[in-house]
Amino acid sequence: MTDKSRPEAEQVAGNGLLHRRMFLAAGAAALSAGATVPAAKADPLPVEDWMKHPGAGFDGYGQPSKYEAKVVRTFASAAGTTGTGSSRTPHHLLSGMITPSGLHFERSHSGIPDINPDAHRFVIHGLVKRPLMFTLDDLGRYPMESRIHFVECAGNSGALFAKEPAAANIQAIHGLLSCQEWTGIRLSTLLDEAGVEPQAKWLLAEGADAAGMSRSVPIEKAMDDAMIALYQNGERVRPSNGYPMRLLLPGYEGNMNVKWLRRIKLTTGPTMTKDETSKYTITLPSGKSLQFVFPLEAKSVITHPSPGLTVRGPGLYEISGLAWSGYGRVAKVEVSADGGKSWGLAALSDPVLPKALTRFRMAWRWDGGPVVLQSRATDESGYVQPSRSELIALRGDRGGFHNNMVTSWGVAANGEVKNVYA
Amino acid sequence: MTDKSRPEAEQVAGNGLLHRRMFLAAGAAALSAGATVPAAKADPLPVEDWMKHPGAGFDGYGQPSKYEAKVVRTFASAAGTTGTGSSRTPHHLLSGMITPSGLHFERSHSGIPDINPDAHRFVIHGLVKRPLMFTLDDLGRYPMESRIHFVECAGNSGALFAKEPAAANIQAIHGLLSCQEWTGIRLSTLLDEAGVEPQAKWLLAEGADAAGMSRSVPIEKAMDDAMIALYQNGERVRPSNGYPMRLLLPGYEGNMNVKWLRRIKLTTGPTMTKDETSKYTITLPSGKSLQFVFPLEAKSVITHPSPGLTVRGPGLYEISGLAWSGYGRVAKVEVSADGGKSWGLAALSDPVLPKALTRFRMAWRWDGGPVVLQSRATDESGYVQPSRSELIALRGDRGGFHNNMVTSWGVAANGEVKNVYA
Repeated sequence: MTDKSRPEAEQVAGNGLLHRRMFLAAGAAALSAGATVPAAKADPLPVEDWMKHPGAGFDGYGQPSKYEAKVVRTFASAAGTTGTGSSRTPHHLLSGMITPSGLHFERSHSGIPDINPDAHRFVIHGLVKRPLMFTLDDLGRYPMESRIHFVECAGNSGALFAKEPAAANIQAIHGLLSCQEWTGIRLSTLLDEAGVEPQAKWLLAEGADAAGMSRSVPIEKAMDDAMIALYQNGERVRPSNGYPMRLLLPGYEGNMNVKWLRRIKLTTGPTMTKDETSKYTITLPSGKSLQFVFPLEAKSVITHPSPGLTVRGPGLYEISGLAWSGYGRVAKVEVSADGGKSWGLAALSDPVLPKALTRFRMAWRWDGGPVVLQSRATDESGYVQPSRSELIALRGDRGGFHNNMVTSWGVAANGEVKNVYA
Repeated sequence: MTDKSRPEAEQVAGNGLLHRRMFLAAGAAALSAGATVPAAKADPLPVEDWMKHPGAGFDGYGQPSKYEAKVVRTFASAAGTTGTGSSRTPHHLLSGMITPSGLHFERSHSGIPDINPDAHRFVIHGLVKRPLMFTLDDLGRYPMESRIHFVECAGNSGALFAKEPAAANIQAIHGLLSCQEWTGIRLSTLLDEAGVEPQAKWLLAEGADAAGMSRSVPIEKAMDDAMIALYQNGERVRPSNGYPMRLLLPGYEGNMNVKWLRRIKLTTGPTMTKDETSKYTITLPSGKSLQFVFPLEAKSVITHPSPGLTVRGPGLYEISGLAWSGYGRVAKVEVSADGGKSWGLAALSDPVLPKALTRFRMAWRWDGGPVVLQSRATDESGYVQPSRSELIALRGDRGGFHNNMVTSWGVAANGEVKNVYA
């Protein structure tokens, strides 16, 4: 590559970060990852074995290729339980912003209940004029909305508070995060029908799992963009994501998006359930804890490269990752290849939607030396994702929740990538 | 409901179509599909069986609920073959705009090849300066894009040309249509690297299936928004959709989005392959046929209600459906409940994306009499989806391809829905 003749290869930040126009139009032509082949041949390839006989027939419900058997969720349950724990999305093996339903993360407190949808009932009661009970069929008659939103566990990325960097990949550190198209009924539609009493300022949402998982939600959120979700990525909500229905509170802690939803009770104040008093608080350096901090702050992480993916020698690469905010749209994502000393602006993949994952991409020419890659999201509210030291100064390092600090991936001279603190 | 006190219940077209604001804010409160329950009870529901014991544990790759076993593709193969035919998406059982990967339609000409991704090669050759060969790993290094696009078989909806209405549901009539987020490399990036010769005006795209399925593509489309797709809905392209890579030509006939892509050859003109001379032409009333009409015209269909879904008595309903155009964004969708005599404007679900399915929704108060429901899409180019008689006047009824006529669903007094001609 002759840089002088290629203004699009302009370096915008240290250690080889290039202007995002590098990857537009003809800009990437210098990558040269392909091998040259003889021009004269009518068909330069041999006839592959799989072209020599008819292939497999059709299936009612398709599955990934058998060659992709490693692209799975990892999971762990608490000792003595089968379903108290979580499974994590392998973001280093995925691309785009939509998470396939088979790989959506899970967090359960007593396993996945086997709910017969015909027998399931959903009730709205408490401080309402008309307590109401719905079957799934009843709900099918209401107007629906479809929206693409992320769901993230409040405990996601907690490993980054540890004293030493994690010898772990993005799936282990950040895998409690997924994004799908959700379709369902705006909760306010049903609350309006029930008639909320003026003294009702909160609601209790309870799941039909054996843990009776329940959280308190302010009425303002319930009347805003909350949804009773019946479909994810076009099909019925999966068992591990709340079949046949879940509460969706876009941008709020994952735990509050109560799965297997059986009732919503309107109340004057928070119910102080076990799930919101024993967990999901933010402990400050002073020893005090913040309770009921619901929206997840702006955050981003580089998925490619990341631990487990090796950078194959000096040259041009695309750095790619995910950014999101519980406060709305991602406004910009900056990428650094020198541990935060200089930053370049990444390209965002359309559509950039509120409270949804946004894929960002950045051109990078690696010179083969050790570098530290970081990404930093800013959302439309102006909030900027903090560095590790900034977040610890603000919050200390004793809490495991709402950890949205910048993630640092160190790339060694041999191309190996691992989590570092920088 | 007292209409006088509810200005949002304004009728905008015949037989009960209501203004789309009816389903915003508090407008739907009068639906009253829920049953009232006693207010006094602390928990109005019994403790369900599935709450009495811990549920199931985690899985690496999740599946739909066993209660959704009917939500599958239907499929048929030509006599004497296992994989020459198609499978169809059950749009009457789905919602939103994203199709789950397990239910994406398929059309294969000699089955699904079992391709080892490490052994697969993709070649660009013919009229290029540097013929190039790529492994899947090579391609992983290039800059990628993610875009949500529909794919539709050119033969989709051909049944509507028949003399009599089809005794069939939307899956059988319109099921060769799906929409996903596709991620891959812009084809122009690779063509620029190969260096297209000035005399190259077309290309041949060939698949690695036993049929060697191949189509000719104009160079303008290849340099515009064509993509070598590696991922669908976040994960690797499924075997039946072209694993490990397919050509994506947004808005063009499905058949041209060549699956299992093994080579692209730059040529001076179309190659006239068996797949474009024996099929995929449009026969006119004069007996002449149009060849190489690639973009699929604006189209829409009501998914709810549709055959197989019964309307359960007079009252308020949401009419919902899908609209799309190979020429760009959907500009508007109109719905009629009186067989096309009057039309009301439907609400479109954001984001409305170019060459993607768009979900539309409309409020409808059914009085219990027989009605004919229709939808009509207009795209941003100004093109209006034709009625059945308009399309037949233009094209005759001898062709099976590019059938984008308005679909009519008759709702009988007993709530049964079936295809009618109106």
